[in-house]
Amino acid sequence: MALKIALLPGDGVGPEVLAQAVKCLEAVEETFNQHFIFKEAPVGAIAIDKKGTPLPDATLKLCKESDAVLFGAIGDPKYDNDPDAKVRPEQGLLQLRKELGLFANIRPVLSHPTLLDKSPLKKKVINGTDFVIYRELTGGIYFGEKKLNDDGTKASDLCEYTEDEISRIAHLAFKAAKGRKKKLTLIDKANVLESSRLWRKVVTKIGESYPEVALDFMFVDNAAMQIILNPKQFDVILTENMFGDIISDEGSVIGGSIGLLASASIGEENALFEPIHGSYPQAKGKNIANPIASILSAAMLLEHFGLTEEAWAVKKAVDKSLKKGVVTPDLKENSQYGTNQVGDFIAHNIVDIE
Amino acid sequence: MALKIALLPGDGVGPEVLAQAVKCLEAVEETFNQHFIFKEAPVGAIAIDKKGTPLPDATLKLCKESDAVLFGAIGDPKYDNDPDAKVRPEQGLLQLRKELGLFANIRPVLSHPTLLDKSPLKKKVINGTDFVIYRELTGGIYFGEKKLNDDGTKASDLCEYTEDEISRIAHLAFKAAKGRKKKLTLIDKANVLESSRLWRKVVTKIGESYPEVALDFMFVDNAAMQIILNPKQFDVILTENMFGDIISDEGSVIGGSIGLLASASIGEENALFEPIHGSYPQAKGKNIANPIASILSAAMLLEHFGLTEEAWAVKKAVDKSLKKGVVTPDLKENSQYGTNQVGDFIAHNIVDIE
Ligand SMILES: [Mg+2]
Ligand SMILES: [Mg+2]
Repeated sequence: MALKIALLPGDGVGPEVLAQAVKCLEAVEETFNQHFIFKEAPVGAIAIDKKGTPLPDATLKLCKESDAVLFGAIGDPKYDNDPDAKVRPEQGLLQLRKELGLFANIRPVLSHPTLLDKSPLKKKVINGTDFVIYRELTGGIYFGEKKLNDDGTKASDLCEYTEDEISRIAHLAFKAAKGRKKKLTLIDKANVLESSRLWRKVVTKIGESYPEVALDFMFVDNAAMQIILNPKQFDVILTENMFGDIISDEGSVIGGSIGLLASASIGEENALFEPIHGSYPQAKGKNIANPIASILSAAMLLEHFGLTEEAWAVKKAVDKSLKKGVVTPDLKENSQYGTNQVGDFIAHNIVDIE
Repeated sequence: MALKIALLPGDGVGPEVLAQAVKCLEAVEETFNQHFIFKEAPVGAIAIDKKGTPLPDATLKLCKESDAVLFGAIGDPKYDNDPDAKVRPEQGLLQLRKELGLFANIRPVLSHPTLLDKSPLKKKVINGTDFVIYRELTGGIYFGEKKLNDDGTKASDLCEYTEDEISRIAHLAFKAAKGRKKKLTLIDKANVLESSRLWRKVVTKIGESYPEVALDFMFVDNAAMQIILNPKQFDVILTENMFGDIISDEGSVIGGSIGLLASASIGEENALFEPIHGSYPQAKGKNIANPIASILSAAMLLEHFGLTEEAWAVKKAVDKSLKKGVVTPDLKENSQYGTNQVGDFIAHNIVDIE
């Protein structure tokens, strides 16, 4: 299979960490006799500087013609600190998600044995945590009609969902659960919200086509407790846009380091893979940014295209770097390894797979 | 001051724990030369059994004529397991909140030195946590217009807020911050929601009248992380109804025991104080339910009426019971102390204040 992969390095440490992910994909090509076609394009602040827009037409075109997008990071302080800025780097990613119809955001939450000390949660609570959140990404209250009355004393936002919007992501989540521990938890607030009751009805119906998957329901306020009381109880979490935003950010704390967290955003025809961390401009060019989240987003890309063995090899090599302490200084004070060295080590261990 | 206090014991362990709170208030009368007038009325399942409704007219009348309501707990499994039940115990509390116009829910979040081991969070993360959440309780998406289209394929909920709704709770929260560490954090999603932008505008404006209080803002997804990464950073949190539901339940995990958590619901003319725990029907009549949440809700009542010294004495006596291990079995396995004994110990220590 010759996958066409658009590389969008973006801003800050984006280019550095993405380069390590590409190294790892090249190691996969070499080891597993795969072929990837990489093409690069600007996005974010660098695209504004070069082309006047955070998502140039040529970049969007490249993404649409590719099988997948591997994304670095986006954002630059010079735009954050300018309240008059008309275009912002972040718009590039939002627009790209919309143009590519990426309706499902997927975030794995894992506890790494070597990083248990870094979590604010106790070892015994998080050890063995392994779940994945499917968050609806293009509907709900973030995109519903907004109103402000004329004298500015009343404001509203509409949370709206259709059966189709729920259905397409529910199928993805059930399929994922089928290949995992066969449990799906729908997080909603069906005791209060009409839209949540529709979610529950549609997901229950779809669940009948996946009899091997156990479906349960949890109210979002209870879920906010359960995620930290007993994260091991979860396998696949499915939820609407805003609940997913809150719950997945809460879940990101469990692992103890944001530098390890990858995500995928999936549409009918395209998919985008990226670390959840930002562009971390203070670290730019210093060879200190943690490349693991970017490398793991490349692993998610491989998994998405059914390259299970290849994805496993990447994750295994990442585990080895953590176990051997070949990590950037954010994970180990005074570490002598930089972004590049960690990337080299992981890529090397994909090739030298045991 | 002769405060008129309506006692609504409710269901399950409600009557047992409320009786301990009353003991403590009687100890306050004795010690501080105060006078409280207690009158009792049924609510919840027991009211359905007796009067056919979870909130009988006489109960509502008593509450309206009182200065404050001290509430036990509500709920009975015989109604939960009956999908055809037309009236449910929980409606009693919802209706009461509405009838009394209780627009602000207040929840303190504290780490108790003796209970640090019970939390899923690490000691060093939670030790010294002391904040309070002001949650708007009668507006927002839980009460907004709900729609379901005719063929049941599209559903929506409206999140609406007015300046007045925001203003009245904001004043309460700023006043609280003034008497505490002088910091107020508004939790919203103002980068996306119009209603959040109205919250931010109104709260910023009101903040000008409280120049001694430092005001900051936090997006709700970030807040879900910060609450567990660094709970010590908070003093007073102010937020809308649904965010408050999620964040306060997440915060309830910090202390390590739900048996200690009290809450207040405040209106213009009335106020209701209750433990956050439920009716725990399995424990009913067994003298094992933890009375501390109920006793601390009585302390919140005293504070609400400016009886600061009295409230302090109650909290001090609770601390002593925790320190001396005079607690129910939920906090100490094989504890020989029951609900009654813990209540006696705390009441006794209010009288014998050092
Ligand atoms: Mg977020
Ligand atoms: Mg709740």
